[in-house]
Amino acid sequence: MLLGQKNKMLKEFDLIKKYFKKKTPNIPLGIGDDGALIEKNKQTYFIFSQDTLNINTHFFKEHDPRKLGWKTLAVNISDILAMGGLPKYALLSVALKKNDDRWLTEFSKGFFDCAKKYNVDLIGGDTTKGELSLSVTIIGEVKQNFVLRRDGACINEDIWVTGEIGHAAIGLAHQKKQICLNGQDLKKALSIFEQPKPIQLDMKRISPFFSSAIDISDGLAQDLKHILNQSKVGAKVYSQHIPVAPWIMKNNAYDFALYGGEDYQLILTSPKKNRKKIYEFAKKNKIKISKIGVTEDIKGLQLFDENNNLIKRQKKGFSHFA
Amino acid sequence: MLLGQKNKMLKEFDLIKKYFKKKTPNIPLGIGDDGALIEKNKQTYFIFSQDTLNINTHFFKEHDPRKLGWKTLAVNISDILAMGGLPKYALLSVALKKNDDRWLTEFSKGFFDCAKKYNVDLIGGDTTKGELSLSVTIIGEVKQNFVLRRDGACINEDIWVTGEIGHAAIGLAHQKKQICLNGQDLKKALSIFEQPKPIQLDMKRISPFFSSAIDISDGLAQDLKHILNQSKVGAKVYSQHIPVAPWIMKNNAYDFALYGGEDYQLILTSPKKNRKKIYEFAKKNKIKISKIGVTEDIKGLQLFDENNNLIKRQKKGFSHFA
Repeated sequence: MLLGQKNKMLKEFDLIKKYFKKKTPNIPLGIGDDGALIEKNKQTYFIFSQDTLNINTHFFKEHDPRKLGWKTLAVNISDILAMGGLPKYALLSVALKKNDDRWLTEFSKGFFDCAKKYNVDLIGGDTTKGELSLSVTIIGEVKQNFVLRRDGACINEDIWVTGEIGHAAIGLAHQKKQICLNGQDLKKALSIFEQPKPIQLDMKRISPFFSSAIDISDGLAQDLKHILNQSKVGAKVYSQHIPVAPWIMKNNAYDFALYGGEDYQLILTSPKKNRKKIYEFAKKNKIKISKIGVTEDIKGLQLFDENNNLIKRQKKGFSHFA
Repeated sequence: MLLGQKNKMLKEFDLIKKYFKKKTPNIPLGIGDDGALIEKNKQTYFIFSQDTLNINTHFFKEHDPRKLGWKTLAVNISDILAMGGLPKYALLSVALKKNDDRWLTEFSKGFFDCAKKYNVDLIGGDTTKGELSLSVTIIGEVKQNFVLRRDGACINEDIWVTGEIGHAAIGLAHQKKQICLNGQDLKKALSIFEQPKPIQLDMKRISPFFSSAIDISDGLAQDLKHILNQSKVGAKVYSQHIPVAPWIMKNNAYDFALYGGEDYQLILTSPKKNRKKIYEFAKKNKIKISKIGVTEDIKGLQLFDENNNLIKRQKKGFSHFA
């Protein structure tokens, strides 16, 4: 996410498609999903994903370095979870202008806090001189039968999201002085924006229930569209069913939930017959998961507002490359 | 390599050790070698390595984008070869300030030229907005028996280098107007500096002959010291046996070969009993490989100049993080 800034550049997805996407017939899944797949053995894939955060694009210099260290790894862990996988190893490349002991100490603490929480080993990387830039490659594992790809959704399936949506977007808007939060609203929003917490769950316990998944980095509507495009299905999504940050409901400000990025919750689809099992699993494991719509044999995404009226002009999500 | 600039910052190796090196008991080899090792199956390891190039540190804006695309991947391929492995897959993160069609077209061509030459599939990555920065994670494979680690050298072994040393360093010095090259000297020096060509060889054919290896990125002396330190041996190296760029010999300018980086040739060690087999293999496969010294039970590295006198004050290599 470019912290709300807009311009006319090609978006990340288009850039990759135009210049860097080539056929990779030797591997099960290449560029275009949350991660690529390589066969580890007959039962298991390795999942690979790389995400970079740059100063003044993805964060500002005021970002607390310990929280930034956490976030740098957490956004990558989210990609592995979105494939139904278990994060295992990471490589970290840190470019920085000067050797700042306090910053590096705090940053590495935050990074390893997150690594410990999600059982990830840092196995390599490098440090270089340059503008502050943080690039992580993460490696996870997933059983071949239970991998969640963006192209796995069928029509007449339920669409789900985990957690509550919109906290990160209102946290950013507050920092940019576009809105004014306080109390618990502010605390939670900044916490999620600065230090996102991907769902902590061994995904193999729930991935068998689902047909596809993606994590919310660029906005619920935009990220869901990747599933729809790649699965060649359409969908209807109802704002009134989206679990949003309380401030969004109070202020009728659903755009933050529909188009704001960086919550790092998951969107999933599942056959309707699994609905009961999903609710039971969620209840038993204290996971918040909400059914927000259905896939249909229509073109694209139809969004309905909080009064159940069709939204005629959808906005765009944030772009990590704008 | 920081293109010759010096300052008082901690070097990359020290920075990683201080802030980012933690024990990783779950994997065969973690931070501290050219790559980390993860078990693929009982016979094979995956090798992982990440290297980042930043504008104004590792290259300047004049660098031809097609050559830069090649170099971005080539320096990573070199890390896999230095582990005795076969490069297989890469992830590429490109940060750039604006969407420059010509630059991206040329850069991606150069990247894929190199990928094709070395049979590497690009399987993922991202594009982001920021100062120009190019981060590659490369994944290779190696048979567990034949992995070449930095800590594998013993005393009384031969020390070898592949190719010719010093071309990249004199190419850089020419670009910085510190020396003046012309004709074939210039052509070759710039070619290797701008577009290094790691040895093209299925390493499993030669790795059984050797006990350790590293690639030359920071300078022959400095990189050899990593082998010596990690293997807990000393060594004697003789300038007159180092295969150097012809200009270096003509000008008696061996410092470029001893301390200049970025040749991306390999330093290897081997038991003396393998000497004949190595020469035979090299001759048959038209590979240039030269014996430049021996490991001994002494402290550190003793360098001898072209007249076979001990060099009393060794210089430092270039640093990628200076």
